[in-house]
Amino acid sequence: MPPDPSRRSERSRRAILTAATELMHEVGYRRLTIEAIAARAGVGKQTIYRWWPSKGAVVLDGFLASVNATPDDLSLPDTGDVAADLRGVVRAIVAELADPKLSGTTRGLMIEMQEDAEFAGMVLDRLLGPQLRAIADRLRAAQRAGQLRADLDLSVAVELLVGPLYHRWLLRTAPLTEDYADTVTDLALRALVP
Amino acid sequence: MPPDPSRRSERSRRAILTAATELMHEVGYRRLTIEAIAARAGVGKQTIYRWWPSKGAVVLDGFLASVNATPDDLSLPDTGDVAADLRGVVRAIVAELADPKLSGTTRGLMIEMQEDAEFAGMVLDRLLGPQLRAIADRLRAAQRAGQLRADLDLSVAVELLVGPLYHRWLLRTAPLTEDYADTVTDLALRALVP
Repeated sequence: MPPDPSRRSERSRRAILTAATELMHEVGYRRLTIEAIAARAGVGKQTIYRWWPSKGAVVLDGFLASVNATPDDLSLPDTGDVAADLRGVVRAIVAELADPKLSGTTRGLMIEMQEDAEFAGMVLDRLLGPQLRAIADRLRAAQRAGQLRADLDLSVAVELLVGPLYHRWLLRTAPLTEDYADTVTDLALRALVP
Repeated sequence: MPPDPSRRSERSRRAILTAATELMHEVGYRRLTIEAIAARAGVGKQTIYRWWPSKGAVVLDGFLASVNATPDDLSLPDTGDVAADLRGVVRAIVAELADPKLSGTTRGLMIEMQEDAEFAGMVLDRLLGPQLRAIADRLRAAQRAGQLRADLDLSVAVELLVGPLYHRWLLRTAPLTEDYADTVTDLALRALVP
């Protein structure tokens, strides 16, 4: 029986994503090349270019495969205590940004997003947008419960919570700690409550 | 009389910075090369490498030379109305980020900052740090006047004002408008007042 081409192709796809993720951690985004990914995955460069338009697109898919999160995993707990729930998600984002491995990949994606608006749209659709919407959903529930101001622009409210974290991380102005996460949450919440 | 070598060298330095800034706007950060800067400035590549360690460093100096701001220019007006003064600076930052020319250069610097922590320190020391400190100084004056909470961490308060703007700009989540600037200022201020 001949080998099943769709299974072989799925094996190649996984090998490429694993190679991209490993190499990303080993050499960093700048020095990562499609050639090196192809060599480690045991495929030809053309195989990669058939499925992905750019280095950034492979890294994004590798990252999504490694975190393996479904939209349900992203939704915030709703304990009824909006302050506690937001503290949790802000701490989690700060921990991700402070983690050298995760942070390296996210910096790579950020670089590509600055250079390529179309790629930025892809990252937003598939990775960052769902995360931001999950926070907006939790804020909306709190708003309906009368715990947050009724006239809030929820997309700006989300930015008030996560914008400071990204600012500190991208500009490398100061360390990202759990205390810092709580300070941001508590301060931002003051703006959001009635 | 022989030509004055220090004047010739100052002329070369200016020609390099002008060429870097022009080319940055014409081809973008990714496609900008030291070779092209040297060719347009009429100098050898080695002349550039003698003065600057990297492409990012030349672009940063070109940008600083083109805005030509002194630390005094950066300080915020103090009209006594902290809300009005902050609205002004937040609108100015949003206008800069929304300007395609300025924004292109800043995206280039951001890319280099993600790839190179040492360069990030340089941009922070020479460009972004002074801007952030100017906002912190205005907040401190308002705090002393009893218009803002006494227990504020001013560096976090600054991030609450500018973090959302950078988040929206870097992640390209939504347009940067004057209305948006005012929404962020008004919301952040609610967290800062007593």
